[in-house]
Amino acid sequence: MKSFKDIVIDKDKDQHLYIQLYKEIKNMILRGQLGEEDRLPPVRKMANLLAVNNITVVKAYEILEQEGLVYKKIGSGTFISKEYIKDFIDRRPSQLYKEIEYQTVTVGQSRVKIDENMINFASGTPSAELFPIDEFKEVLNEVLDRDKGFAFDYQEGKGYYPLRQILVEYIKHYGIYADAENIQVISGAQQGIDIISKALLNYGDYVFVESPSYTGAMAAFHSRGARMIDIPLQQDGLDLKTLEKKIRLYHPKLIYLMPNFQNPTGISYSMEKKEGLLKLCKEEGVYIVEDDYLSELNFNDENNITLKALDLHQQVIYVKSFSKIFMPGLRLGFLVIPSIFNENLLIAKHATDISTSGLLQRAFELYLRRGIWQQHLLYMEGKYQERFKTMVKAIEKYLSKDVGVNIPSGGVNFWFKLPKGFSAIELHSRAETENIALAPGSLFFINNKDDGYFRLSIASVNQSQIEAGIKRLSRIIDEYLDNQAPKRKEPIIKPIL
Amino acid sequence: MKSFKDIVIDKDKDQHLYIQLYKEIKNMILRGQLGEEDRLPPVRKMANLLAVNNITVVKAYEILEQEGLVYKKIGSGTFISKEYIKDFIDRRPSQLYKEIEYQTVTVGQSRVKIDENMINFASGTPSAELFPIDEFKEVLNEVLDRDKGFAFDYQEGKGYYPLRQILVEYIKHYGIYADAENIQVISGAQQGIDIISKALLNYGDYVFVESPSYTGAMAAFHSRGARMIDIPLQQDGLDLKTLEKKIRLYHPKLIYLMPNFQNPTGISYSMEKKEGLLKLCKEEGVYIVEDDYLSELNFNDENNITLKALDLHQQVIYVKSFSKIFMPGLRLGFLVIPSIFNENLLIAKHATDISTSGLLQRAFELYLRRGIWQQHLLYMEGKYQERFKTMVKAIEKYLSKDVGVNIPSGGVNFWFKLPKGFSAIELHSRAETENIALAPGSLFFINNKDDGYFRLSIASVNQSQIEAGIKRLSRIIDEYLDNQAPKRKEPIIKPIL
Repeated sequence: MKSFKDIVIDKDKDQHLYIQLYKEIKNMILRGQLGEEDRLPPVRKMANLLAVNNITVVKAYEILEQEGLVYKKIGSGTFISKEYIKDFIDRRPSQLYKEIEYQTVTVGQSRVKIDENMINFASGTPSAELFPIDEFKEVLNEVLDRDKGFAFDYQEGKGYYPLRQILVEYIKHYGIYADAENIQVISGAQQGIDIISKALLNYGDYVFVESPSYTGAMAAFHSRGARMIDIPLQQDGLDLKTLEKKIRLYHPKLIYLMPNFQNPTGISYSMEKKEGLLKLCKEEGVYIVEDDYLSELNFNDENNITLKALDLHQQVIYVKSFSKIFMPGLRLGFLVIPSIFNENLLIAKHATDISTSGLLQRAFELYLRRGIWQQHLLYMEGKYQERFKTMVKAIEKYLSKDVGVNIPSGGVNFWFKLPKGFSAIELHSRAETENIALAPGSLFFINNKDDGYFRLSIASVNQSQIEAGIKRLSRIIDEYLDNQAPKRKEPIIKPIL
Repeated sequence: MKSFKDIVIDKDKDQHLYIQLYKEIKNMILRGQLGEEDRLPPVRKMANLLAVNNITVVKAYEILEQEGLVYKKIGSGTFISKEYIKDFIDRRPSQLYKEIEYQTVTVGQSRVKIDENMINFASGTPSAELFPIDEFKEVLNEVLDRDKGFAFDYQEGKGYYPLRQILVEYIKHYGIYADAENIQVISGAQQGIDIISKALLNYGDYVFVESPSYTGAMAAFHSRGARMIDIPLQQDGLDLKTLEKKIRLYHPKLIYLMPNFQNPTGISYSMEKKEGLLKLCKEEGVYIVEDDYLSELNFNDENNITLKALDLHQQVIYVKSFSKIFMPGLRLGFLVIPSIFNENLLIAKHATDISTSGLLQRAFELYLRRGIWQQHLLYMEGKYQERFKTMVKAIEKYLSKDVGVNIPSGGVNFWFKLPKGFSAIELHSRAETENIALAPGSLFFINNKDDGYFRLSIASVNQSQIEAGIKRLSRIIDEYLDNQAPKRKEPIIKPIL
């Protein structure tokens, strides 16, 4: 720890001495030279140390206190504020952020770094060759010819009204009944989560997330200054007893979840859990943010009903992106929101980007109205089902029985657990050298100490890549486990959640 | 004020008594039944009042304290926290937000409510008929044919690399030299300000804004939990002496400004002020957010150099939207950022919407590379210059000399001041009934008590509308002032800032 007597105060400098002193101490805190609960020297002592007036020290301490950097304990002195330190540390590009960056760069969002020969099980983004370019080009041109410059004008903040109308019709097929006023168009699911945070969360509010969960959502809550509590997932959803206990303890504003084919685990909530969750949250006054990741891709007759379809009391904010089965770069999705939040969310949307691109909204409206979207969805379901079957077969055929696996009933995510003592980060490195990309599970945990999990997604790999990729990856895993055999003493854990 | 003895605790209810009590008190605070610095009854007294154990009250108070709703003063009792109340009030859809809503609905962002015959001086959005649809359609189709599905893939978070490269070349013409790594593509200026807030501001940080300023920026800072200090504008920019004093007092993180053809006043900073500002902010360690609103539209040979072009020490975050002279509904713009913020801004962008629409980025890249943008800019400059001249002439010809006016040297905004005692809100209502839309000045002040100002924009009115509109508005003003003549005792104030 740097000593206070090293502080340099320059009396010839054209800046008040107390400002100099304030800045020096602040810097010591920011650099970590002064930690949580450290005490500042008493005023008189500090003044002597630096050969300045008492009043200079008093003033400097006052500013520090106003900024919340220090606090006074009557009779004991002035201390570095724990809250501030915590806050400050939270704001530094943390491990969490490093991982987002990692995901951004490595996990399929940049075509630059992914080798052409890479079999990319890490990306959750559908393969570009599946996008229905010709049909979309047609509607784009039709909109430009029809609306001319108005296609590029600002839209209503809530979204282009005809699009909201057709969305109301569309979601009826999924058992969701809403008014156009309850629809908020968004520039993708990530923005949806961001504006929900802005509209509903104050600094310091508690938010519950599944453990593991989607990194982007956690980053949005974190950025808002919310405190996150992670609740462990079970095979059929969150444990409601634990949840109830924690709700009573923390009184969260929101709980964020993906009840069907969850990302990253692929698990789905049982009907009992879905209903119990709604009941509990109703009783405790907690709002649910339901991120409907990919409930459409239902391959095993799972009950894939959304919480929103069961939501009789307007407790659920429903987030839907078109990216996952359509075009991620389109940046388009929508929220279905309880009426009481209509105004707040519109304000948050306005402060975020005013409105979503009018051209794209208009084109997508036509795309939905013509039924082209619905055709595309059927096509994608077929494609993904083939991949899904191939994936299940390849796992059964090649993968070491020592590796736990959660076979989902739909969606694109498969979740794996290495035997105890083995690291998914290490596996990731080994796989990378052989042109296989996977997502280490630690990316999806707030407290990412458990390094045994990894996720494989079939979103951007075709059938032959799946077959070849799982074969190769299984061999890499075998080599890793065998090389390290002495360590492997634990029984196989199944199910893995 | 509701009395504490009205609190109902239900012992048969399946919820802990202390939780019930905690919720009751919290509700009283949220409903405003308990105000700032109100004292809660001592534990024993409250327990007697409600016929519960002391420990129930202690626990309830503890939770309230943990949540920051109350605080303890040793020896005096438990008090409602001022900070929290302030915070809570700040978070309610405030006057500020009501005004944004007003702007959203009335000020030209919805085509629904603006009558076709309305002469819209309120909107800052260019007329849809000026948009270069055919050329843009061409590049859109070219991109779709060239890139196929990849046009819809995720882009790098920083933006499509070739677009960033061409932007680097483009801004050289404006004297700004940057690397592609210092460019961050954004979905419009509003998003730019939002992600800057996320990347740089902590809850409670100070931000300085010009008074008056752009409402959307203030909403973004407000939403981030920042404290805003408004600094009065003078005819040639901010008063640097006042600014220096306030910087030393508040140590703001950021100062947000529009140095050329400011919105809403139209004023431009003198070269002396621009340089002085950079020097002062360098000395005090304050970053500048420069919103380059419309510096291109320079009609009177003003020195319209940007602060970014003068920024030798990487102090300026430069925000540029293409909306104002291109297509607002496109939602596209860029930041030029000091290198130290590259990473933080990328993270904030990712948490906000992952990336801006790839299709639009690719189309715009081609649009810039082909030089079509530059042609369009020349065309728009011509159009706006005609409007500008017509506006100046109409003001000279029709407007009462009792109304103060700031004739800008460029841009689209004209700023007016009614004689003392007259209200722009009232004028707005009167004008509206005669199909003239204007923006009351109070929209642009944090503390919107001064109701004498209003803004007229020539962005979405053509020449004949300007001539007819100013003529009609002047007549409405004359009637308003004359009707109320007895009140008009004050001398004319010129210049108005």
